[in-house]
Amino acid sequence: MNTEIYLDSAATTRPSDGVLEFMSEAARGCYANPDSGHAFGLEAERRVERAREIIAASIGAERGEIIFTSSGTEANNLAVFGSAEALKRRGNKIITTDSEHLSVYMPMRELAKRGFEVIYLSSKSGRIDIGELKAKLDEKVVLISAMLVNNETGNIYDAGSIAGAVENSGLRGNLYIHCDAVQAYGKMPVDINKLKIDMMSVSAHKIHGPKGAGALFLRKGVRIAPLLFGGGQENGLRASTLNTTGILAFGKAAGEINTNDGHIAELYDYSVAKIQEKCPGVVFNQQANFIKYILSLRLPGIKSEVIVNYLSGQGIYVSSGAACSSKRKKTREANRVLLGCGLSEREAESTLRVSFSKYNTFGEIDVFAENLAAGIKKYNNN
Amino acid sequence: MNTEIYLDSAATTRPSDGVLEFMSEAARGCYANPDSGHAFGLEAERRVERAREIIAASIGAERGEIIFTSSGTEANNLAVFGSAEALKRRGNKIITTDSEHLSVYMPMRELAKRGFEVIYLSSKSGRIDIGELKAKLDEKVVLISAMLVNNETGNIYDAGSIAGAVENSGLRGNLYIHCDAVQAYGKMPVDINKLKIDMMSVSAHKIHGPKGAGALFLRKGVRIAPLLFGGGQENGLRASTLNTTGILAFGKAAGEINTNDGHIAELYDYSVAKIQEKCPGVVFNQQANFIKYILSLRLPGIKSEVIVNYLSGQGIYVSSGAACSSKRKKTREANRVLLGCGLSEREAESTLRVSFSKYNTFGEIDVFAENLAAGIKKYNNN
Repeated sequence: MNTEIYLDSAATTRPSDGVLEFMSEAARGCYANPDSGHAFGLEAERRVERAREIIAASIGAERGEIIFTSSGTEANNLAVFGSAEALKRRGNKIITTDSEHLSVYMPMRELAKRGFEVIYLSSKSGRIDIGELKAKLDEKVVLISAMLVNNETGNIYDAGSIAGAVENSGLRGNLYIHCDAVQAYGKMPVDINKLKIDMMSVSAHKIHGPKGAGALFLRKGVRIAPLLFGGGQENGLRASTLNTTGILAFGKAAGEINTNDGHIAELYDYSVAKIQEKCPGVVFNQQANFIKYILSLRLPGIKSEVIVNYLSGQGIYVSSGAACSSKRKKTREANRVLLGCGLSEREAESTLRVSFSKYNTFGEIDVFAENLAAGIKKYNNN
Repeated sequence: MNTEIYLDSAATTRPSDGVLEFMSEAARGCYANPDSGHAFGLEAERRVERAREIIAASIGAERGEIIFTSSGTEANNLAVFGSAEALKRRGNKIITTDSEHLSVYMPMRELAKRGFEVIYLSSKSGRIDIGELKAKLDEKVVLISAMLVNNETGNIYDAGSIAGAVENSGLRGNLYIHCDAVQAYGKMPVDINKLKIDMMSVSAHKIHGPKGAGALFLRKGVRIAPLLFGGGQENGLRASTLNTTGILAFGKAAGEINTNDGHIAELYDYSVAKIQEKCPGVVFNQQANFIKYILSLRLPGIKSEVIVNYLSGQGIYVSSGAACSSKRKKTREANRVLLGCGLSEREAESTLRVSFSKYNTFGEIDVFAENLAAGIKKYNNN
C-alpha cells in the first residue's frame, strides 16, 4: 500500500505531537508514585492535580469533581453501577436510551439481571424524546443515563433538556443524571453547568490523548459506590496507582481542545459533496442534529464490512460501526445502535462510518471518495 | 538538592530505556484501536497479542490465559470479586491472610459486607501457616487469596503450599486459588504451574514498565464474573478499548525480566552492612524467607515519616510503607500489614522501607547510609 489515510477517529485518534512529547517526558522524568510521601512523589501528585485542573476547566467543572479512570468504559460503568448501588434503597428504575454505547448498555443489562427495571427511550428520530422521558418519570427512578453524541451516527442528543424535564417533574432530588460525553468531548462545547448533569464520562484517546486514561465528572455532593477497592485513591472512588503518564498526557490533550476549528466541518461538507459526485447510490444517515466529525452513510446493496476491507487494502481506514463490536458478527445485537436510530437491519448492515480529525486533509478525502467509488463499482451487483 | 537517589522501587519503578522507547514508538505508530477491522487495527491487535504471549511465557502460562487490566489493583479486584460472584451459589467463605495489600484486603471487607465470611490467616511469622489453612478449609470455601511477596516487608509467603494443602483436603474442585504476585513478579521466578494456582495478578509498573497496565492470569476453564461491562474485550472479562501503548510497553518490560541478576541481592547485603556500621540503633524486620528487593528496618525511637521527609530533603527517596497508604494517618489501619507480620504498633510506626532496583548503585547506598545516620542523629532524642 502506498497511502495511509486514517478516517476512523471516532474509534480512536492519533495522539497529537504535543501529547506524544508530554508522554515521553512524563514517563521518563515523572515516574514516582503520586501517593509516595517524598518530594519525587509530591511532584508527580502536583502534576496530576494540574492535569485534573485542566480537564475540569475544559468542561466547566472544579478540580475536585474529576475522578480519573482507565477509560471511558470504566467511567460509564462507575457512573451506572456506582449510582445504582448508592441509590438502590431509594428505587429500582433506570431510564436510558435504546442507542447507548455498549459500555452503558451492557451495565444496564447487568442491572436488569440484578432486579432493576431499565426503561429504554426511543432515539428513532436521532434525538431523545423528552415527552417520553416525562411520561416514564416517577419517584422510583434513581438514574437517567443518556449520551450526548451517538458514536455510530454522530447524532447529537438533547441531553441538556433532561435536567429541565426532571426539574419540572419535581423529582430532581430523587435521582442522578449521567451523560456519556465520550464522543462529544473535544468536538463540541461541553459544559456540565449548561447540561445540569451530575456525572459525565470522557476519554483521552478520543481527543488525541493516550489510551488508558478516562475520567468521570462527579458533581460535588453526589455520592456513588466505587467499583475498584484498595488504596483509597481518587477519594476512595477508584483504587489503583494513578497512571501518571496517561493522566498528564490526558491533561495536555484537554488543553489542546479547540472546538472553534471549522476545518472538520469543512471536511465533512467536502466529503458529502465528493461522495454525492462520485458515488451516486450512497445515502446519508444523519438526521436531526449531528456532529460533523462522524459521517454515517449507507452503501448501495453492499455490506459495509466488504468496503471496510476493500478500502483497508488501499490503506484507507474506515469502520462499519463502533470498533468495540466491529469484529463480532453483524447480528441484530451488533446493529442495536443503528436500529435504535431508526434504520432497518438491511440499512444497518450497509452502514459505513467515516470519522474525521484535525489531521485529515481535503486531498485525503479526494483519494477516499475515488476509492469508495471504485469499491462500490466492484462489489455492487445491482 | 544536588543528588537524587530513588530507593522506593516497591512503590513503583523507573521505566527502562527499552520500555520508554517502545512506548514512544507504539504511541506514535500503533495508535489504532485493536478492535478496528481495518489493517491498521489488525496490526495493533497483532502487537497486543505478541505482548500477551511474552507476558504469558514469563509466568509459564498460555497466551489465552492473560487478561489485561489497568493495574495490579484492578487484577486483584477482578480475581476476588469475580470469583465471589461466580461461585457465590457454591459457598460463602473466603480465606486470605492478615497482611494482604489493600487491593485484596478492601475487596474482602466489601465482600464481608455482602454476606461472605472472610477468614484471615495469621502471617505473624512472616509466612502463611499452612496448618491453620488446613484447619479452616471446608466445603463452603470458594476462594483462597494470598500474596507471594509482602509489599511492606519483602517476606515471601509459601503460596506454593496452598494448592497442595487444598488437594490433600479433597476440596480442590470446590474453590479457586488466587495469588497477588505484584511484588514478586520480575524479582523472583514466578511459575503458575509450580504454584498450581488458578489466578495471579501482576503489574507492569513494578517491573520497569508503564503505569496503567496490569494483568490477571486466569487458568483455562476458570470462570469468573467481569467488573467492567461493555465492548466485550478480553473474552468479555474486561471491557474497554485496550491500552495498546501500555500493553506493548508491558510486554517489553516482561521480556526484559532477569531474575538471575545478583546485583540487587548484593545491594541488599551491602546496605545491611553499611547501616549496621553507620546506624547502630537500627533493627531489621526481615523474618523467615524474604526477597532482597525490599529492606524493611526499624529506626531507633523515631517515626519513619520524619526520616522519609528528612531524606527527601536530601534528594533520597524511601518510604514509610506502601505508597497507597503513605499519605493517610499512621493509624492502626495504616499499620495493618506490619501488625499482621508480627510487629507492635510502636515498631510499625518506626518502620522504614528501602526498596531497590537494578538501577541502584553501591555509591548510592553509601550516600543513603550516611544520610540515614545523620537523620537518626538529628531526630533521635534518646
